[in-house]
Amino acid sequence: MKFTIEKGIFLENLTYVSKAISNKNIIPILNGIKMELNDKGLYLTASDTELTIKAFIENKKINQIEKNGIIIIQSKYILDIIRKMPSDIINVEVIDNIKIKIYTENNEFNLNCMDPSEYPNLKIDESKNPIFINSELFKNIINQTSFAVSTQESRPLLTGINIKINGNILECIATDSYRLAKKTVELDNNFQESVNIVVPGKNLIEFEKMLDNKEDIELHIFNNKILFKYKNLLFQTNLLSGTYPDTSTLIPTEFKFIINTKNNDFTGAIDRAALLTQSKDRNIVSMKLNNNILIVSSFAVEVGKVEEQLVVDSKVSDNLDISFSSKYMLEALKTIKDNDILILMNGDSKPIVIKSVKDETLIQLLLPIKTY
Amino acid sequence: MKFTIEKGIFLENLTYVSKAISNKNIIPILNGIKMELNDKGLYLTASDTELTIKAFIENKKINQIEKNGIIIIQSKYILDIIRKMPSDIINVEVIDNIKIKIYTENNEFNLNCMDPSEYPNLKIDESKNPIFINSELFKNIINQTSFAVSTQESRPLLTGINIKINGNILECIATDSYRLAKKTVELDNNFQESVNIVVPGKNLIEFEKMLDNKEDIELHIFNNKILFKYKNLLFQTNLLSGTYPDTSTLIPTEFKFIINTKNNDFTGAIDRAALLTQSKDRNIVSMKLNNNILIVSSFAVEVGKVEEQLVVDSKVSDNLDISFSSKYMLEALKTIKDNDILILMNGDSKPIVIKSVKDETLIQLLLPIKTY
Repeated sequence: MKFTIEKGIFLENLTYVSKAISNKNIIPILNGIKMELNDKGLYLTASDTELTIKAFIENKKINQIEKNGIIIIQSKYILDIIRKMPSDIINVEVIDNIKIKIYTENNEFNLNCMDPSEYPNLKIDESKNPIFINSELFKNIINQTSFAVSTQESRPLLTGINIKINGNILECIATDSYRLAKKTVELDNNFQESVNIVVPGKNLIEFEKMLDNKEDIELHIFNNKILFKYKNLLFQTNLLSGTYPDTSTLIPTEFKFIINTKNNDFTGAIDRAALLTQSKDRNIVSMKLNNNILIVSSFAVEVGKVEEQLVVDSKVSDNLDISFSSKYMLEALKTIKDNDILILMNGDSKPIVIKSVKDETLIQLLLPIKTY
Repeated sequence: MKFTIEKGIFLENLTYVSKAISNKNIIPILNGIKMELNDKGLYLTASDTELTIKAFIENKKINQIEKNGIIIIQSKYILDIIRKMPSDIINVEVIDNIKIKIYTENNEFNLNCMDPSEYPNLKIDESKNPIFINSELFKNIINQTSFAVSTQESRPLLTGINIKINGNILECIATDSYRLAKKTVELDNNFQESVNIVVPGKNLIEFEKMLDNKEDIELHIFNNKILFKYKNLLFQTNLLSGTYPDTSTLIPTEFKFIINTKNNDFTGAIDRAALLTQSKDRNIVSMKLNNNILIVSSFAVEVGKVEEQLVVDSKVSDNLDISFSSKYMLEALKTIKDNDILILMNGDSKPIVIKSVKDETLIQLLLPIKTY
């Protein structure tokens, strides 16, 4: 293998695929990135067996190709090495089938490589009926839901995001059982078969970070895996097996308390109230509704208390006193881009629903916390 | 105590004094910031007994003063609280001598305070003959030397910076016994008494961060402490007691190898060579001089090796092969602003001296590391 390539292109694609390399990996060869140069161009692949990322740099984007070949480079230092190369054009050459030389005029790295025959055969499949979705839209969907997945391995399914497709409706749900985020979008086309899968949250979050333009993503869905095709990238992750809990009955559709307020004011009040609850275990903020006055408050025994009044639009004369996690509330509010929001409730022990006044596609739900 | 003040002014000065509060402090009252409002203005004080910082906000910078008073506020949340207040003007009021109310129109924090009578009496003294030094110059002096202090408590004196003044010459030295940084500057005025003190490095680094304009600093030097007066701030730190080692004989004045090169090229080469030596214990880079070719190299057994050639200006025909800490070399090079530098050596076991071709006031020295 011998070629000359622009530093920026090489670095960008090495960075993409390196996201598949796991810190927890114990199989040495999987710390490597597979580089394969053939007549079409350069293929870079990395995997932790559950997630596989493959990037393709077509030959016309490679300055010079002298010799095809295949090698496994160690990933640990390669990004820093390429980033710090003193020239914008760098040369890559495999020596004796087992070393790689990365060099410019005055600088030369000689790195030990691994045997490509040891690299696992990672099968990347495409389905006949992929789903097309705009990448900007998909980025939003992930951002608005993924924060709500569980980080506890005790219920592995909840560490994933539930994606359902029926006809032209795509629904994304994440919950850790204390809160739930649900986003519904319309696809451009009908999809014949219905889909109900659970994609590992951390992998979707990695994929979301790669979305930087408006190109469509192709979703190729299988029983046990999903492949995202985007730009020059293939991003394939396993699915979580099992039946995702039916969350449709959890979200109330009628509410006794309907509060109309401004996202920035409410977020500010919660943010300030949260200051006095900075311990990890206890981040409870209280909210009292008294006609059109909403009082957000919290206290910390040794430090003191904080109280903030918001004048809101509310159509109920009953009072309400409810407590919740300020962290969960702030994370939910952050996903809503509109400033006019609804806080919907049915009582101090019933779920709180937050959504935009205008946009019905996103629902954020959190459970209150009993403080007595 | 009751007053109204601009958020920005209050926050800035609370931030300054909070730097004196130590994480390791076990005396509860020293977690507090003393606030004293009198006819002249507002005084904020914090201390860990070794370092005391006092800020003064004169009354004309306070929007409204209704009542003087004194209180000790807990420092833990106060910066975040003030930073997140929803208005640019905030009200402060002491309630029942033991609580403080910080409030705007709709928002109110009630914070428990501590008894001012428990706060230690921190004596801040001024000398009759302060030394005046431009703050921009002083900032440079600290930046160019402080990185070289020792972090080991086993030789406490080396955790400080040695400041010497003789006539109008100020000399600053820091060393951890493996490297040394020395800066010499001329003062505008002669100082009658000679000075030879050791100031705790971490305190000088905190003070340096506060220097943000060109105003003069006043240095008030005593046997066991030094007071810096700067803007509206008093910054007083204890001195380290003991005799700082005489470093004057350590810095060679004649050199066998005199290499003239560019700082950016040399820094780049060291930075790249350092990539393969990223372990904490082993960050050794080697340098070979062969007539006018300087080869910077390193290797990591399992990863590979790197080599970079620089064409330099050297007036000696002897060869040299020398190794050193890349971290120490990079930190030394970073302090030199000029691009034309000299690398001065006498052999593979003798100190390496780095300095600017033009600027004789800064000397960086590091010891080589024997690799055989």
